[in-house]
Amino acid sequence: MSDPDTNKNRVFTAAVLVIGDEILSGRTHDKNIAQIASWLQVQGIRLTEARVVSDTMEAIVAAVNALRDSYDYLFTTGGIGPTHDDITVDAVAEALGVPVVVHPGARAILEDYYGGRGLELTEARLRMARVPDGADLIPNRMSGAPGIRWGNVFIMAGVPHITAGMLDALTGTLEGGAPLISETTGCWVAESEVAEMLRAVEKAHPGCQVGSYPFFREGRTGANFVVRSTDPALLARAVEALRTGLEGDGREAVAGGI
Amino acid sequence: MSDPDTNKNRVFTAAVLVIGDEILSGRTHDKNIAQIASWLQVQGIRLTEARVVSDTMEAIVAAVNALRDSYDYLFTTGGIGPTHDDITVDAVAEALGVPVVVHPGARAILEDYYGGRGLELTEARLRMARVPDGADLIPNRMSGAPGIRWGNVFIMAGVPHITAGMLDALTGTLEGGAPLISETTGCWVAESEVAEMLRAVEKAHPGCQVGSYPFFREGRTGANFVVRSTDPALLARAVEALRTGLEGDGREAVAGGI
Repeated sequence: MSDPDTNKNRVFTAAVLVIGDEILSGRTHDKNIAQIASWLQVQGIRLTEARVVSDTMEAIVAAVNALRDSYDYLFTTGGIGPTHDDITVDAVAEALGVPVVVHPGARAILEDYYGGRGLELTEARLRMARVPDGADLIPNRMSGAPGIRWGNVFIMAGVPHITAGMLDALTGTLEGGAPLISETTGCWVAESEVAEMLRAVEKAHPGCQVGSYPFFREGRTGANFVVRSTDPALLARAVEALRTGLEGDGREAVAGGI
Repeated sequence: MSDPDTNKNRVFTAAVLVIGDEILSGRTHDKNIAQIASWLQVQGIRLTEARVVSDTMEAIVAAVNALRDSYDYLFTTGGIGPTHDDITVDAVAEALGVPVVVHPGARAILEDYYGGRGLELTEARLRMARVPDGADLIPNRMSGAPGIRWGNVFIMAGVPHITAGMLDALTGTLEGGAPLISETTGCWVAESEVAEMLRAVEKAHPGCQVGSYPFFREGRTGANFVVRSTDPALLARAVEALRTGLEGDGREAVAGGI
């Protein structure tokens, strides 16, 4: 850990790599990107890129190497189960240039988990104790098989609630900067009507970003405006300016969003 | 269009590039990847990679160039509205090495759309008529601003139901191969118990992929098994072998999935 005062001004970045044909086929909606993104914000780490690749060795190896080099942290999800299409550990090991080994701690966890249920630790189940050589384990309190950490690469489950448990276990253990905070304001307005005002508010508050997210509901046009900053006082001033701008034309600005 | 008989054996690939801080902040769950993936399957085009990047010029330009070179088609979503954070058109134009121009057809559509509502075509709204020079328009029947096609790059909206309308307009216009078809079978079984059988079924049916997607519901462990192929007869044989394998141990195989 370096000096926290220095880190406050450093931006820590992360990428998520979703591994899975089920996402690319449209069969399953990914939930892990949003889940990991929200968790990272609280850790003071910014999710800067996400990728989804298929369950093929070549695609995973290329993405792991591109992303672990470009960002402070890389989280992979998916492909760590017991079946033949679970090749994440092999692919990450290849990307890292290390062999795959059975981790004694992971083996013990699986023996305990399956043994306690009167089940045998079959060859398929033992696959889930395989890690890139030199890895540490990430506790999994939801099911048997642990997650895996190797350097700045975190190998998480594909099933979202298992990954949620692994994230809990990692909370507070990663070095981050000042958390990015945000405040949302909703308004029943076409964003094109307030585009100039939004641009002016962002320009007048360096260190804040203003995002505009339109929607159509109940046959009406509206938008949520999200102001983001690492500085709470600056954020408050920008939000105040935004709400004044929205209400200037007799509209209602809804704190928290619509 | 080349010879359809030749194309049957060619795999056509696509990538999706989601542009938006709202996805990377965890605030919004992306729906466009799954939506475009499902639509592509029907067109005989395989979604091979998806990326999510932030609303910054550098990130978008790099991703556009990497993906349009690697795949037959690239679909971007997001960042084409009237506000200051909508920079997709500028970024794609920079990636393509062409200037941004106001498209006369798009301008006419916007004049008609806003004029018909008694609204002025402000500078902010006119931003939505800007395209990379040489682009064609993609009709948008949901709201005013059209999508944009330039070569193999398709610039779509961020709001999912607007993109749905644009996809409808493109249906049948893109060259594809034989559609990938799939059949799902569910079973209340831990996937580790059938891992060897799944591997054997896939190995015995070259041209089919077998995916295993575990879940935990109602306090029980189950999985859905998805067999995919471009050949309907081959698919049917592999599904039959899979169901026989699942039922061999007295379990029930649920056609269509659980």
